[in-house]
Amino acid sequence: MNKIDLLGRRKFITGLGIAAGAAMVAPAMAVSEKATGIKWDQEIEIVIIGSGFAGLAAAIEAKKLGAKDVHIFEKMSYFGGNSAINGGLFAAPVTPMQQKEGVEDSVERMVADQLAAGRGIADEALLRHVASHAMEALQMTLDAGSEYHPYLQQLGGHSVARTYQTTVSCGAGITQPLLKKCRELGVNTHNRSKFEGFLVGEKGEVLGIKMRENYHFGEDQPGKIIHIRAKRGVIMATGGFAQNVNLRMAQDPTLTSEVGCTNAPGATGEGMYEMFRLGAIPVHLAHIQSGPWASPDEGGFGYVSNYSIYNFPHSIAINRLTGKRFMDEIADRKTRADAELACRDEQGNALPPILITSYADSKKHPNTEKVIKYNVGWKFDSVEELAKHFNVPLNPLKAQIEEYNGYVKTGKDAQFGKNMTKAKDKYIKAPFTVVRLWPKVHYCQGGVMVNTKAEVKDSFTGEPIKGLYAAGEVCGGIHGVSRLGSCSIPECMVMGMTAARSMMKA
Amino acid sequence: MNKIDLLGRRKFITGLGIAAGAAMVAPAMAVSEKATGIKWDQEIEIVIIGSGFAGLAAAIEAKKLGAKDVHIFEKMSYFGGNSAINGGLFAAPVTPMQQKEGVEDSVERMVADQLAAGRGIADEALLRHVASHAMEALQMTLDAGSEYHPYLQQLGGHSVARTYQTTVSCGAGITQPLLKKCRELGVNTHNRSKFEGFLVGEKGEVLGIKMRENYHFGEDQPGKIIHIRAKRGVIMATGGFAQNVNLRMAQDPTLTSEVGCTNAPGATGEGMYEMFRLGAIPVHLAHIQSGPWASPDEGGFGYVSNYSIYNFPHSIAINRLTGKRFMDEIADRKTRADAELACRDEQGNALPPILITSYADSKKHPNTEKVIKYNVGWKFDSVEELAKHFNVPLNPLKAQIEEYNGYVKTGKDAQFGKNMTKAKDKYIKAPFTVVRLWPKVHYCQGGVMVNTKAEVKDSFTGEPIKGLYAAGEVCGGIHGVSRLGSCSIPECMVMGMTAARSMMKA
Repeated sequence: MNKIDLLGRRKFITGLGIAAGAAMVAPAMAVSEKATGIKWDQEIEIVIIGSGFAGLAAAIEAKKLGAKDVHIFEKMSYFGGNSAINGGLFAAPVTPMQQKEGVEDSVERMVADQLAAGRGIADEALLRHVASHAMEALQMTLDAGSEYHPYLQQLGGHSVARTYQTTVSCGAGITQPLLKKCRELGVNTHNRSKFEGFLVGEKGEVLGIKMRENYHFGEDQPGKIIHIRAKRGVIMATGGFAQNVNLRMAQDPTLTSEVGCTNAPGATGEGMYEMFRLGAIPVHLAHIQSGPWASPDEGGFGYVSNYSIYNFPHSIAINRLTGKRFMDEIADRKTRADAELACRDEQGNALPPILITSYADSKKHPNTEKVIKYNVGWKFDSVEELAKHFNVPLNPLKAQIEEYNGYVKTGKDAQFGKNMTKAKDKYIKAPFTVVRLWPKVHYCQGGVMVNTKAEVKDSFTGEPIKGLYAAGEVCGGIHGVSRLGSCSIPECMVMGMTAARSMMKA
Repeated sequence: MNKIDLLGRRKFITGLGIAAGAAMVAPAMAVSEKATGIKWDQEIEIVIIGSGFAGLAAAIEAKKLGAKDVHIFEKMSYFGGNSAINGGLFAAPVTPMQQKEGVEDSVERMVADQLAAGRGIADEALLRHVASHAMEALQMTLDAGSEYHPYLQQLGGHSVARTYQTTVSCGAGITQPLLKKCRELGVNTHNRSKFEGFLVGEKGEVLGIKMRENYHFGEDQPGKIIHIRAKRGVIMATGGFAQNVNLRMAQDPTLTSEVGCTNAPGATGEGMYEMFRLGAIPVHLAHIQSGPWASPDEGGFGYVSNYSIYNFPHSIAINRLTGKRFMDEIADRKTRADAELACRDEQGNALPPILITSYADSKKHPNTEKVIKYNVGWKFDSVEELAKHFNVPLNPLKAQIEEYNGYVKTGKDAQFGKNMTKAKDKYIKAPFTVVRLWPKVHYCQGGVMVNTKAEVKDSFTGEPIKGLYAAGEVCGGIHGVSRLGSCSIPECMVMGMTAARSMMKA
């Protein structure tokens, strides 16, 4: 029989006469026995959980730094996670394309834009760390073969155009090349492999993980569990929890299953909760972001999201009850989502506003033909036709279009102070393309607290939990109340790379 | 040698050949061995952690329901926790005093007021549960001997006067009688007893706790740890974390140690974090409330807080830069705290606004003489004297006072829509009493998620964690973004009573 210490502090083991049997275990903090006696099914140098931007970038960076044995475990049957279906929008300051387009930008400017959207509670040090390394991450994607549209976009809340977008207008334009690069470099990739919890050592440090093999998402506990020793540590790159309806409703009871969500189904948050069980600090879980560019006429991210992200700078968003604009079309996401949710009919029911764009401008985006083809967007030859279709009062709408076109001319939006740089010469005129807008749950600002080394802090000691790193949407607090669009990919990749660097130095 | 299961799921124990030794333990979720082999130092029927409103009410209710062996453990040397130093303000709908004063109120009205302050994310079911039982809780305090001022107050965000206040203007006017009642009923009360974590059984259920005896707050791990079996379960009534600077800064980096805090020093949040380690759901930690009635001229809750809570309805809050009002003086706490924090000089430095009250009205509150005596408030015989002292522009201030007195006359505030019921006939006129205002960290809306049985939900299963109950500020999500003043005592007491009832039924 072995003596088992169930106490939280080693000092007090003696004299308590605790019998063996390991009947019960204390929470993982400060577990007191040495890591002897367990049979590891595998020993691996670096364990990465999740195959989105963060996990893939971590694996590539680890390999570059000389790691020999790097494994990525993905619970779904496919690789890429939620990253593979996002919009493929990548913000970075001081890039070749900014130089080409004559855009003056800096790390500090990007940080300042994000701090404003964060409404006072963003993590400035983390934002600066990510912005400082964003170009490196972008270069990693280019080196892997990612292809981008030959123009920059200026997304809501950004004071300048600094956003690249993949030619496929989708995150898969990054995850696929990075996955290919991982395999070229000898990274071992495992799908249907579900992380089931940590195995920790004497001082609560992470020594390894429990992994369910041959896992089938959504089925009742299939697969077999094995124990994997992670010699250098574990990088948690498990993403957000926007698809976990119970948990998002715990934060916001209005986010029921009836509210749309742009995320892949695997975004359910267990990895984050297992870190809370280790003592990680939950930060900003209450801040769940809805994408203001989504359409109620299609499921998920769909075609409209990228269409409207591209078109917002030179479009008008109209409240159908009044026929008037109701927001700066390129304000930050929270500002716009809140403004859209306030568009109601006289009984208070949702009345999704419409985004009106000149067809001549909208058609430059490849999704324009698709939104029309799939009846999630419509083309009109006259404002009368448009107004009738959406039951918008005609004269106020005509007056609004005329007023806005005056702002296009002067370059100053007297209604909402929109930055008109990207609207230059883009008058709202027939024929029009129109989509409907309604926010969808998109991104979890909350997660575990990390530092600029991608280490996870312990809630009791404030010190990093040894052997544990986290990167990407599973982390919280970086962006504060509202994340700016196209700032997630650089964050995921930079923090994934950072985790690999920290681990290889440790 | 015993076989030790380190897996998260019992099904998969067999065939993995895990050696004994209990070297490592999985996080507490779904721990798999039977609770055999541990030596309990004590066996207790009901364990209550924390001796504030929630813990005391739970103990009394448990005794009333026939519990034989109820113990309260308090980590500090004194009993009462942060409750003992709060303002002693107790909101309840449909009370004897409302009847006497002719105030029409209802449970639904109180819930509606709180939902508005919660800004869409409050927990309506919990609010209704608390409001429905608030009068019972108030009665428990009266039965125990609490004494209240013979008038109601109408606090910010409440649409009617429904707030009792202890004659000592302090929560000790409730905690002391409740503590006395506990002892009369045979509740065992232990001070210097620090909760150090849970001991859990086969399915993750709470079987008992680790308790450090002879603990001295703030010293380096003194005392001795014992194991206590809790036969009916554990009620966590451990309060908020407003005094844990690192953890509140994790949520809001602006809440540094330089920001004032009204809480007792023990409000450090370990109990909450131990529940997260068990798998409890963290809710709304990002929403930390600052009290808009606090003064920068004294530490903690001080004398001014109760003074200004009482006087806000018939006072004007003035921006010293402009000489004008800048908020509805009885808006909800967040609205007012945000408005005060926006009062800045031309360089953007904090310029605490002033609250001006007619001395004739303010002197009805017992703190008036104290705030003047201790130089945290001042009396002026003329508006000229007042304006000079605080460097407020005289003419705008005079005009503001005249304008506001017009609102007192008509009963309608055309500036900020303040409810003028309690301002009737209370004109702002010399001599004046004046205090300065600046928000202090006061209350954590966030905590563990509970249901209307005071059960703590598990983040993975959504089911209650067996043997575990929580009540009071350690719980989160009830109030949403902003808790209304005087709604904490009813919440703490009702949820404490609820926990006892659930436990005695289980």
